[in-house]
This record gives sequence, structure tokens and C-alpha cells, in this order.
Amino acid sequence: MPTRRELANAIRALAMDAVEAAKSGHPGMPMGMADIAEVLWNDFLSHNPGNPGWPNRDRFVLSNGHGSMLQYALLHLTGYDLPIEELKRFRQLHSRTPGHPEAREAPGVETTTGPLGQGLANAVGMALAEKVLAARFNREGFPIVDHYTYVFAGDGCMMEGISHEAASLAGTLKLGKLIVLYDDNGISIDGEVHGWFTDDTPKRFEAYGWEVIRDVDGHNPEAIKAALVSAALDPGKPTLICCKTVIGFGAPNKQGKEVSHGAPLGKDEVALARQQLGWTHPPFVIPDAIYDAWNAEAKGAEREAAWNALFARYEQAYPELAAEFKRRLAGELPAGWQAHAEAYIRRLQAEGPVVASRKASQMALDAYGPLLPELIGGSADLAGSNLTVWKGSKDVNGSDGRANYVYFGVREFGMSAIANGLALHGGFLPYDATFLVFSDYARNAVRMSALIPARVIHVYTHDSIGLGEDGPTHQPVEHLASLRYIPRNHVWRPCDAVESAAAWKAAIERRDGPTCLVFSRQNLAHQPRDEAQLAAIARGAYVLSDPPEAKFQAILIATGSEVELAMEAMRALAQQGIAVRVVSMPCAEVFDAQPVEYREGVLPSWCRARVAIEAGTADYWRKYVGLDGAVIGMTSFGASAPAHVLFEHFGFTVANVMDAVKRTLR
Amino acid sequence: MPTRRELANAIRALAMDAVEAAKSGHPGMPMGMADIAEVLWNDFLSHNPGNPGWPNRDRFVLSNGHGSMLQYALLHLTGYDLPIEELKRFRQLHSRTPGHPEAREAPGVETTTGPLGQGLANAVGMALAEKVLAARFNREGFPIVDHYTYVFAGDGCMMEGISHEAASLAGTLKLGKLIVLYDDNGISIDGEVHGWFTDDTPKRFEAYGWEVIRDVDGHNPEAIKAALVSAALDPGKPTLICCKTVIGFGAPNKQGKEVSHGAPLGKDEVALARQQLGWTHPPFVIPDAIYDAWNAEAKGAEREAAWNALFARYEQAYPELAAEFKRRLAGELPAGWQAHAEAYIRRLQAEGPVVASRKASQMALDAYGPLLPELIGGSADLAGSNLTVWKGSKDVNGSDGRANYVYFGVREFGMSAIANGLALHGGFLPYDATFLVFSDYARNAVRMSALIPARVIHVYTHDSIGLGEDGPTHQPVEHLASLRYIPRNHVWRPCDAVESAAAWKAAIERRDGPTCLVFSRQNLAHQPRDEAQLAAIARGAYVLSDPPEAKFQAILIATGSEVELAMEAMRALAQQGIAVRVVSMPCAEVFDAQPVEYREGVLPSWCRARVAIEAGTADYWRKYVGLDGAVIGMTSFGASAPAHVLFEHFGFTVANVMDAVKRTLR
Repeated sequence: MPTRRELANAIRALAMDAVEAAKSGHPGMPMGMADIAEVLWNDFLSHNPGNPGWPNRDRFVLSNGHGSMLQYALLHLTGYDLPIEELKRFRQLHSRTPGHPEAREAPGVETTTGPLGQGLANAVGMALAEKVLAARFNREGFPIVDHYTYVFAGDGCMMEGISHEAASLAGTLKLGKLIVLYDDNGISIDGEVHGWFTDDTPKRFEAYGWEVIRDVDGHNPEAIKAALVSAALDPGKPTLICCKTVIGFGAPNKQGKEVSHGAPLGKDEVALARQQLGWTHPPFVIPDAIYDAWNAEAKGAEREAAWNALFARYEQAYPELAAEFKRRLAGELPAGWQAHAEAYIRRLQAEGPVVASRKASQMALDAYGPLLPELIGGSADLAGSNLTVWKGSKDVNGSDGRANYVYFGVREFGMSAIANGLALHGGFLPYDATFLVFSDYARNAVRMSALIPARVIHVYTHDSIGLGEDGPTHQPVEHLASLRYIPRNHVWRPCDAVESAAAWKAAIERRDGPTCLVFSRQNLAHQPRDEAQLAAIARGAYVLSDPPEAKFQAILIATGSEVELAMEAMRALAQQGIAVRVVSMPCAEVFDAQPVEYREGVLPSWCRARVAIEAGTADYWRKYVGLDGAVIGMTSFGASAPAHVLFEHFGFTVANVMDAVKRTLR
Repeated sequence: MPTRRELANAIRALAMDAVEAAKSGHPGMPMGMADIAEVLWNDFLSHNPGNPGWPNRDRFVLSNGHGSMLQYALLHLTGYDLPIEELKRFRQLHSRTPGHPEAREAPGVETTTGPLGQGLANAVGMALAEKVLAARFNREGFPIVDHYTYVFAGDGCMMEGISHEAASLAGTLKLGKLIVLYDDNGISIDGEVHGWFTDDTPKRFEAYGWEVIRDVDGHNPEAIKAALVSAALDPGKPTLICCKTVIGFGAPNKQGKEVSHGAPLGKDEVALARQQLGWTHPPFVIPDAIYDAWNAEAKGAEREAAWNALFARYEQAYPELAAEFKRRLAGELPAGWQAHAEAYIRRLQAEGPVVASRKASQMALDAYGPLLPELIGGSADLAGSNLTVWKGSKDVNGSDGRANYVYFGVREFGMSAIANGLALHGGFLPYDATFLVFSDYARNAVRMSALIPARVIHVYTHDSIGLGEDGPTHQPVEHLASLRYIPRNHVWRPCDAVESAAAWKAAIERRDGPTCLVFSRQNLAHQPRDEAQLAAIARGAYVLSDPPEAKFQAILIATGSEVELAMEAMRALAQQGIAVRVVSMPCAEVFDAQPVEYREGVLPSWCRARVAIEAGTADYWRKYVGLDGAVIGMTSFGASAPAHVLFEHFGFTVANVMDAVKRTLR
């Protein structure tokens, strides 16, 4: 029977070897946290390598994701479908072992990490998901949702601001099944951290209402074990276990130093480390006894089988709940969804309410929400402005089994990373919200929604200078274009209540990535549409208006609040005998993905007299209007004044649009 | 003689009245913090309304910037050039009283605030500036730099992650002259904070090494005064004064409630508040006795005169230091700068080093740094990767009078907001650094650099898929375009060591805004240039290569690492008889600002066969290539693999560029 140290050394050896083979990577963290990982995975973590998707598995998040080889080693050793060949191809194109863990690559990787601190916030989302799902589905004697969320985090995660936001909210929400193992090795990339990081981190987490276990020797399995047992005791407090470790443990000349962090140890040092660790096996060779001791397939299959038996009994006792649970975990929309949503959109088209699109968003939540108990969301302390509370909203910080609303507090970055975690856990369709300008604060979490990809809906209101008096600090300009440029992200900016409802429908139905829904503060006119136009909203852009008789000479392309202006300009131009088409383009990314015939039908190549109108970065629109067209857009920051004054001041006027059209026709 | 409460009520009345007049704004905070502000400004703040630029003034930062009327009222009452008419025009176009305080609008506003938490971080930068400047210039008996930095901050600031980053670093750096007054009113926009914010904030700040003064009654002037006296005692610790206040104090039906936060109180409630406060004067009318008691012009002029006298003696004793102090405070570059920098660039052109542009950046720091003691900077824990340490770097966390290097730790957002504060203080030209992809974390502070505008240099290395194995979490794609879209921001992406040196020169010389310098991880070829081309780098884009004989048929536009590829493709095309111009465009914003003749000279309108090459968002380049051209760019996230494999995989090949050129010629 191998010793615990030998088991941990298998991780160390694989990490050293893979980093050597790749000629790049981070050996220090896996070697430093190997003992902790060994105890957690062998004695505590409830998972099934044969089915990484088993719903009731414990979640494991490597927030210090540069230590990816730790996770790959664990997955490989415990029996996940990650053969040694994949570890040999660490950091190579098309391998399943990229430089940082990616959720859709290696099986068992719960989230994509590397951008520091976000894994911790994802984990807060997962722990919250567990808590809310348990409250909804568990019944006396049927704890079908009952698992822990474990996080590895390093000094980098602790320095990042998002650690404050995530940990603070986790404390408030009393996420007692969240357990964070802090790799307190005193080293970050610039060296010994005391020159730039002198926090009393245990005290800080106590201030958040966490249970804190101090001064655990991260190389002493018994101490780690005792800490993990103790961490589970208080169900009302998340736990931080502070582990003192030596980075690069086992490398005689490099351990305890920054030099072991982010580069191969080198052939000689690897040889010396093998000696020091007593690991005599060649690179990538793990003795069978060690494989056997690590293998968790049988134990995992047993665990899942026991849960399956429990769930089968649950299914008998609560057939409807069980069906609903399965539907939600599968991420499927309820029967009747399509018909319900289409009927709502059709009704709105007929009624033609003139409201702010943020209000239309809330109306959509009220219309769709009752069908979608998986919807969970909230706002970063702007509920009354973002209009994210709907009639069915119930605070998750209460005891209602139908809880679905999160008061995120003023924590945009934490919020969006938590939303990613809620989505990754399964069972939820999360939305979050803030002012569009403050998407900046959450920017990298929004990028991660797309990279992972996570099915998350980011609601952004107050979408332009139209927010008015709050001024340029609060007025987005470059944000629309910048969000559209995040690969795989969809950005909807609807022009009226109807498009708003269609945008929410598209976001809810999207399975392969996130959606940003961008709404106005101010009222927007209702636009007339026939059935075909109504259906075409879902294609991202469509012809909202064509001249009744003449062939159009120019095309106006607009989004959101500027569609109204385009329509007015179109009418004024018509009076002057200039025939213009108006294209509403609520979602450029969805439009770009349409077949060329459709796109050509909306924006025919022959027509180069194109004018785009959007109260955001002008240059973005060159992709549609080219060098011959014109853009009425923003080229500077906004200003503090009433909205109508600003639209006039920045040139969003019928006269300007008319001039632009005439110029392009010259 | 008016009572303190009457003085404070003048603030309350002006805030109520201005918000009523504007029909929007935030009365709650000014009414809640009026008593604190009154004590601070009348008994402690050392400033001179007659000269808001007096270098040794105390800095006052309103981090909870929505309470802008508090600051406008203070500036007006104490005698700054902000007449009552400006307060009546609160939140109107072209007024000096925008919705949130803006640094270049009202005199005495030190920084632009509103985006929560950033004011606090700006203030950390100001306090750091004071400390480093004092260490550099003060001499025995000549404390010419000796002031406090005061901050007002609210619950929102405290919830934001940036408060963690900024406060943690302030504690480590022992910024003892930083004093934060925390408006602990228990209310944020969503209501009573206990549902989403339960931190023990005093304990948290103690964990950062701050002095914390708890439970101060924010409506008791004596208690506030005692706290402020005590705050100044420990020179080694920043101080947090926790003030219990009532939001909207004085409004009988709305005080203590969220409803007083962000909307006019309404005519009736204003009348009732006047009654409750005993304030009988009409809107915008302040009795002379109150004006007199507030007026700080004489006191301020005296203070500055005393300092001027001190400085005059200093000038006699240390003429060179005094001259240098004046130069630095004026933000002027040293004599000889131009010649020195130009000679360096010319030498590089002659020597033609083949290095990564991040290395070229460090070489530029080594070349320019000795002339520029005002340079202060550092990296977010990536010194060895960003190459931000140069030969003259000395840690500010030491005692060296020439200190100029900040180990920011893993705190990108805090870092950039601190850099804004360093710039705003005066005397410094700050730079900060991280990987380009993590500009996301600092995104809104980068925007604020441009909005303020602050003379800050953001250094971003590892600028594309060229960073290789670390994978898509670390590979920027949309970042170049997104940074370029921030109004007033300049983004340089140099193609070799020469352009890198020219980019640093441009950034250093820019006085009206920030610059992002974007550098490669990998080596870049040296490009040949004649004198005219060398000079033209400063114009943002220039013709790097034209066919020797034939007229060019197509134009290749490239930046950074892709210029090399453009040159290779040009040569390969020449062999096939296709004559191509190559334009290097290190800074699109600077190019766009050139006269049309210059721009037409580089990119003549007649030539629509244009191909742009950049390992970033492809669509950005449509503004230069239009609908007829082509772009070799990124349309997805990157991947984890060696850099050369990725460039090939994502189509950055000579063959692809040649095909694209041929397509555009069809």
C-alpha cells in the first residue's frame, strides 16, 4: 500500500514531467498543493470518474488555474477519461489538457480558470446553486441535492478584488457547504509577497462571517484531514482553510521560491526532485500500486449507484418533482414554452405598448418567469433601475423553496462570475444586471461566460447617453461594440417592447453561450410589423420598413432607441422623394450567422448608400456601411444633461440622418 | 455666529434645492454626510479656494460621487469659483456641475468619481504620490510636500472589489496620511444592506493594517472632530473612520430610507425638511452670516502664502531641487528630452535589435528612465513578464528618496485607479502593467484615465495568441479594438524595437490623455526605415514599404507582430508581379487625427484593394478596408499551443495574406 506521500508524489511527478515535455507551465503550485489534493480527493471528494456529469457530485474548482497539471493529474489518476497520452500532450493544439483548465475540454473540469479569483466566485455560484436547488427539490428523507463545493485558491486569488466580492456575499448567504483551501505559500510571481501583500487573510474572512481554520500544515495529511472534517461542521458558514505550503515542494533548489512557479524546473532539477521525493519512476510512468490506490472508479460508481437508488425512490414518491428536476438538470425548456413565448410576443405586437425597453424586459420576465423556475438572477444593487425583480421573485437569502432572486450588492464582477457558477452547476438559467457602463467592472467574467461557454444572461440597462443627467461616468459609449467583439457573445439591443420580448426569448433559448440584453432607460416607440417581420426578429436583423412603391435608394440601419429616429428620418426623406429602407438590427452576431441569402436580402450588396445609427461607437458600424456609407454614432464621451438635450447635442437628429443619406447618395 | 448644524444645513439645503431644480440627482448622501463634511472642511482641510492648484493642498476625494452636490456645495460655500448660478444649473449641458464630479469641470474637484470604489483607489494613488514626493523633495526644516488625503466613501465603495485591492495595498505601503470617512448609513440602492452586505468592515480594514476608529456618530461634530484628530496620530497606518449616519438626514419622511438616495425629495418633503432643519431661507439663498462662516478664502490664501514663503527659502537653499520640483509639478519634460529620445530611436534603427517588443519596452525604460524621475510605475505581479523593472527602479515600499517602482500585487483594477490618482496628484508620470487580456480587470479605470483625462501609461504585454501555451484564458482577442474604442484613449502596438521606443516617446509626451502600450511576448523582426519613415512613426501610421518601380495595386495594413508577416507577403507577391504597399499602423487613433492630406497619402482613396492583418478582432479593421477589402484577423478565441502553431492554425500565413490580396484585386 503506497503511503500518502507517495500518492501525492505521483501528482508532483506528473506535473514536473508534463511541464518539462511542454517546455512551459507551472510546476510550483501542483507540487505545493499535492498533499492537500491527495487528502481531499481520496478521503473527501464525492465524485464518479465514470460519470463526470453525475448531478450530486461534489464540485471541485481550481481557482489558481495555472496549476492545471494538478487537476489533470488528479483526473488521470482517479480514473477519468484522460489517458496519459493527453498529459504528455499538455499545452498542445487539440489536446484536452490546455495550459489552464477549460470546462469543455478535460472531463471533470467544472469551470475554466486562470483569470485569478474568478474560480472562487464561480464556486460561490455553485454552492448557491446547491443550496437553492436543495431547498427546492429535497424532501424529508430524500436529500437528492447534497454536495460540497471545494476550491483551491492561491495568494493571487486572495489579492484580486473579486475575492472580496465573492467571499463577502458567500458569508452573507451562509453558504456552509463551500470550503476553500487557501494555498498560503507566501510567494507570488514577483517573489515573496510580504512586499505587496500583508493582509491578515484569516481575519479578513472572519469579517465576512466565514469559519476560518488557521495555520494548517499543508504537507501534513492528518492536519489537512482534521481541517476538512472540521470545515463541514458549521452548516451556516463557508469555511476557509489556511494551509501553509512550500511552493515547488520537493525540488531541492527551487522549492519555496518564485522560480518554481511558472517555468519548467529543468532536467537537472527534476532529477534532483525525483531523488528528494524518492520517486524513482521514469517520466509519465506511474506504478500500478499507485494507480490502484488512486483509482476512484469503483467508489464513484457505488456512490452514484446509491444516489440513483435514492433518486428512483424519490421519483416514485414525487414523480412531478423528479421529472422537473431532470428537466432542469438537462437544461431543457418546459413543454409549451415556444407557444407561450410566441403568443406573448404576438400579443405585444398587437397591443403596442410604449415603454422603456428596461420596462419591457421586466414585462418579459413577468410573462416568461412563471414557466421558468430555473430562472435565477438579480442585480448589482440596481433592482429598481434595472427592473430585474418580477412578480415571482423570491430572495435566495430567505427560506422559500422557490427562491430565485439574488441581491448581489454592489459587486458587478463577483455577480457575473457567480452567475457563471450558477450556470455551470446545472439546474439554473441565471441572469444578472447592472448599468451597461458598469459591464466594464464585470468585463472578464462576461468574457468567461463566452469562453466557458456558460448559459448566462447579462442584463444591461441605461444603454447610452439616453440615461441623461448622471453624465459621462455613467453613459456607455464603447460598450456595445466591445461586448459584441467578445467571441461567441450575443448582444441584443431591442428597439421596442416587442423586440425586447423576442430578445429575452432568444437568450433563454440559446444553449451554446451567453447573451447580453441591452435596454434603454427612456421610453421607446412601438414599431409596426407584419407576421413575417415579427418572425424575422429572431434572425438578428430584418427589414422593418421598405418604401411602398419605389425601390429603395439607401438603407438606414439602426438598433434600440435609434430605430425610432431612423423611421422618422425615413418618413421625412420620403416626403422629399428619397426612398429608404430601414433595417432594425437588434443582434448583429445572430444576423452575421444567417445564410448569405438572408443577409443579402436584408443588406443587398448593390446598395452602398448605407447609414448606420447607434448611440455608441461609430466605427463599429463600418463593417456594415463600409467606406462609402455614413454613421451617426458617438465619437466622444457623453455629457451630463437631460437625454433629449444630449441626443440633439450629439447629432442624433432627423436632419443629420437626412444629410448623411444625401451624402451617401452623391 | 451660526452653529455647526446651521453650517451643515446650508449643504443640505443646496443639495435639496439643486436636485429639485434638476429634477434628478442624489440628495440622500449630501444630507447624511453634511455634518462630517462641515467639520472636515472647516476645521481640518488645508486648501485654498483662490488657487485650487496649490501643490501642497490636502486632497479631498468624494468616492461616493453620486453625492456630487455635497462637493459642489462645499466648493461654493468655501469660496471657489463656482457661483450659485452653476449650482442652479446642476446636471445641465455645459454647466460646471455635472451629475457626478468631473476633474476638469468644477475647480477643486480632484478626480472624476461615480464609478464606485475608484475614488478610494485614486486617493491611495494621491497619498502614495505625497509620500514618494515628500521623500524625494523634503529636506530638514523644509516639509514642502506635507498634506493629507481625505476620502468620503459609502457602502457601495466598500462592497466593490476595488476597495479590497486599494485598501490592502494602502495598508502594506503604510500610507499614514490617508484618512477615509466611511458613511455607514446601512442603506444602498436596493434598501437596507443587511440582506446583501454583512461584513464587519472595521475588522476587515484592521486585517489590512489600517487604524480603525469605530462607531463615530456622524451627526455629532465633536465626535467627528475627535476622530479626525486621532486619525492623524499614527503616521504608519492609513485610517478608516466609521461614521454612523442617517441618509437624507433632515427629511422627515424619507430620511434613513433608500427613497432619499437617488431622486428629488419632492416639493412637499423639501418644505418639511426645511421646517425640521430650521432652515427658513428660500431655495438657493444662503444668508451672509453663513457664507462668512464658511468662507475659506482668507485662511486659504494665508496657508498658501506661508507655504510660498517656505518654498522661497527652499528655493534658495536647494535651487536645483526647487527647479526640479516646479518642473515636475508643471508636468513638463526635462530639457534635452527630445534630442535624447530621438537619438535613442535613431540609434535603435541603426542597430536593428531583434527582440520581443516587451523587451524593447524595457530597453526604452532604461534609455528614457534616467531623464525622467517623474516616471513611477510597476506591474500587477508580472514584473518579470511585463518587463517593467528597469535599471533605475527602486521600490516605493522602501526608504530610498528616488523610489519609483510599485509592486502592485495581483490587483489590476486597483493598480490602474491608483495610477490615475498618482497622475492627478501631480509630480508623476505613472505607468502600470499587466497582460493585455487582464486589461479587462482594470477596464473601467482605463476608461476613467481617458475620461478624467489622466496622463497615465498602461503597459500591456503578451498581446495576442502569440503568448502561446497559456491558452485562451490568457490570449487577448477583442482587447485591442475594445481599448481603441475608449474615447480619447491612444493604443500603440509597435512592430519592432524602433516603433516600441517611438511609442514610449509618444506616450511620455502626450499631455491630454492616457496611452496603452501593447507589446509582444515573442521576438519581432527589425524593419528597415529611412529618416522620413522614422519620423513618420509618430503620425500613427506610415508607408513602411512601397514597390520600388511599379505603382502599388494593393495595400497591406498591419500592426505589431503582423507587420513582419505583411512584409513577407509583400515580397512573395512581388515575386508574382503583384505590387503591394505595406502600411505599418502602430496607433490608429493618432493616425486618424492627422490632416486628411497625410491620411490620403498613406491610404489613398483610389485603392480599395486593402488587406488588414492583426491578431485581434477582424471586424475592427473594416473602418480601413471597407466592404471591398479583406482582414486576416481573429474571429474566435485562441487556443493553448506554441505560438507558431497558433499563428498557422488561425491563418496568419503568407499564403493566406497572398490569397486575400488576390481576392481583393479581382
